[in-house]
Amino acid sequence: MIRIAIDCMGGDHGLPVTVPAAVAFCERQPGVRLLLVGRPDGIEAQLASAPADVRGRVSIVPASEVVEMDDPVEVALRRKKDSSMRVAATLVKEGQADACLSAGNTGAWMAITRYVLKMLDGIDRPALTASIPNGHGGATTVLDLGANVDCTAEHLLQFAIMGSALVSAVEQVERPRVGLLNVGEEVIKGNDVVKEAAEMLRASTLNFHGNVEGNEIFQDTVDVVVCDGFVGNVVLKATEGLARMISTMIRQEFRRTPLTMAAGVLATPVLNRFREQVDSRRYNGAALLGLRGVVVKSHGSADAYAFGWALQRAYDAVAGGLQERTALAVAQLTKRAEETRQ
Amino acid sequence: MIRIAIDCMGGDHGLPVTVPAAVAFCERQPGVRLLLVGRPDGIEAQLASAPADVRGRVSIVPASEVVEMDDPVEVALRRKKDSSMRVAATLVKEGQADACLSAGNTGAWMAITRYVLKMLDGIDRPALTASIPNGHGGATTVLDLGANVDCTAEHLLQFAIMGSALVSAVEQVERPRVGLLNVGEEVIKGNDVVKEAAEMLRASTLNFHGNVEGNEIFQDTVDVVVCDGFVGNVVLKATEGLARMISTMIRQEFRRTPLTMAAGVLATPVLNRFREQVDSRRYNGAALLGLRGVVVKSHGSADAYAFGWALQRAYDAVAGGLQERTALAVAQLTKRAEETRQ
Repeated sequence: MIRIAIDCMGGDHGLPVTVPAAVAFCERQPGVRLLLVGRPDGIEAQLASAPADVRGRVSIVPASEVVEMDDPVEVALRRKKDSSMRVAATLVKEGQADACLSAGNTGAWMAITRYVLKMLDGIDRPALTASIPNGHGGATTVLDLGANVDCTAEHLLQFAIMGSALVSAVEQVERPRVGLLNVGEEVIKGNDVVKEAAEMLRASTLNFHGNVEGNEIFQDTVDVVVCDGFVGNVVLKATEGLARMISTMIRQEFRRTPLTMAAGVLATPVLNRFREQVDSRRYNGAALLGLRGVVVKSHGSADAYAFGWALQRAYDAVAGGLQERTALAVAQLTKRAEETRQ
Repeated sequence: MIRIAIDCMGGDHGLPVTVPAAVAFCERQPGVRLLLVGRPDGIEAQLASAPADVRGRVSIVPASEVVEMDDPVEVALRRKKDSSMRVAATLVKEGQADACLSAGNTGAWMAITRYVLKMLDGIDRPALTASIPNGHGGATTVLDLGANVDCTAEHLLQFAIMGSALVSAVEQVERPRVGLLNVGEEVIKGNDVVKEAAEMLRASTLNFHGNVEGNEIFQDTVDVVVCDGFVGNVVLKATEGLARMISTMIRQEFRRTPLTMAAGVLATPVLNRFREQVDSRRYNGAALLGLRGVVVKSHGSADAYAFGWALQRAYDAVAGGLQERTALAVAQLTKRAEETRQ
């Protein structure tokens, strides 16, 4: 049984999204037990129509406070000590859950999980990562996506180690190919941090492919793309924005005249399949790597469908042994780095 | 008459692309005179079938050397003093042309135009800029796209001034809205450089909208998006890669079964219109801002259609008075900045 603690209060929608998504996930996934954290009466109300089998695999864990989307990190961390976020992270800390998930305030979720769970030895900062579909039926794991705006070469190396461990665990790839995001014009071969990171990656035991350019995120060049959080966040949002624009443009084109509308009706199944493939809800669920426990962050605006994918991500991470693999990979690297220094 | 000097030797294809594109552009645009720079016999051969009217508006300017795509900047600048790039830039310098265009080695083109034309007073570094289509029929001007990987806040401010001047000139927008590319997660409000740049932009006379996130490049939030060259380059390439992937996916989806192929035939005109709208060739032609002259860079891989768009960009920049506007805007800012310091 894989046990996932869910902050049911977080996100733009809270209970009406998180609890139905949890119920649906339980129905799909017999090997899961869910710990629903939040206000018991609210959760109970949403569970009213859940099938008996599901009821048997969910428990309600009370939490009296809620971290709001605009709460400063200090408030979330210091003043709301019985928040649903804090309780969910504590369940992992105490070994009652294998993973925790929230759609709430990102900064608060990162600060709370870091405070409660602590960092792995050898990792300085947690990193947010997501899986971006490539054009070859697979996906590219990109990190960091916004947890760290200023990074040293050492941080980028740590991201590479954690990203590699994630892909090994979740996608069963033995030695994931790692690329370092860089610019491609001849003038400039990247800034100093990137150059130094490339050297460190080359000297590491990772399967380092070399530099990659922005377009290679969507090709099957590498399994893991490493970048600082500023670049990662901007790229992720830019590509989401473009995908949305293209979907809208296609819809508009088909609505232009009666003839194109007729063509659109015939093309509907095809366009639906396409839309499904690029539907960013399917890629919801960013793993927060580097902590002593599996932590997943859902988009705040996630609906039940998207939240279900984030649950799936948490489940897969636990099933694949993400925590053990990351800890082992990090320990090996730290040891190696120490040996090199001596 | 607007006079454009073209490095006919540059790019992956050279003469067979640049000269036919120049001829076609001349036919479309009666108000243009083109100076074709390169090996005279090669250019002449490509001009063989050009109509008499066009022949009357093109002149061949000989250049005995060619900067290769993999030439180091030093070689291009110091050893090839009669390169087609150098001659094209010199024509602008000497007032014989109003703009110059090359599809060659980006680093060499930047170094040569900077050396020959010099920077505007008050601008430290040239910036590469391009126009990215938004979902509202317009476009967003983004800079820098790779000329500068490490930027100070002052550089970002200069990019904003130059980008504003470009949009005013080419798109006739009186006070272009300027956005500063930043991350959106609550944890982090950007790195120190971006925070400082935001303050400087707020204090400037520019129409500063504030921070924007990656997805807003594709919305009609602002006219100009400012970022450092590392981020800009990665975002540009990532979005080009995604657009290509989506086009391929749609094609594949329509080829799946006989039924979807039939739907695809009916949908062809719609899909072609869509493909045309997202065709990156239409957005070819990056202006290199900050120099004492209009300089445009075409993609190295441009075909004649794409190269024609770069020519159009050079033409529009001259017609809109880009050079005068940029020089004026920069001079005003420099004056204002000096007054503030006193």
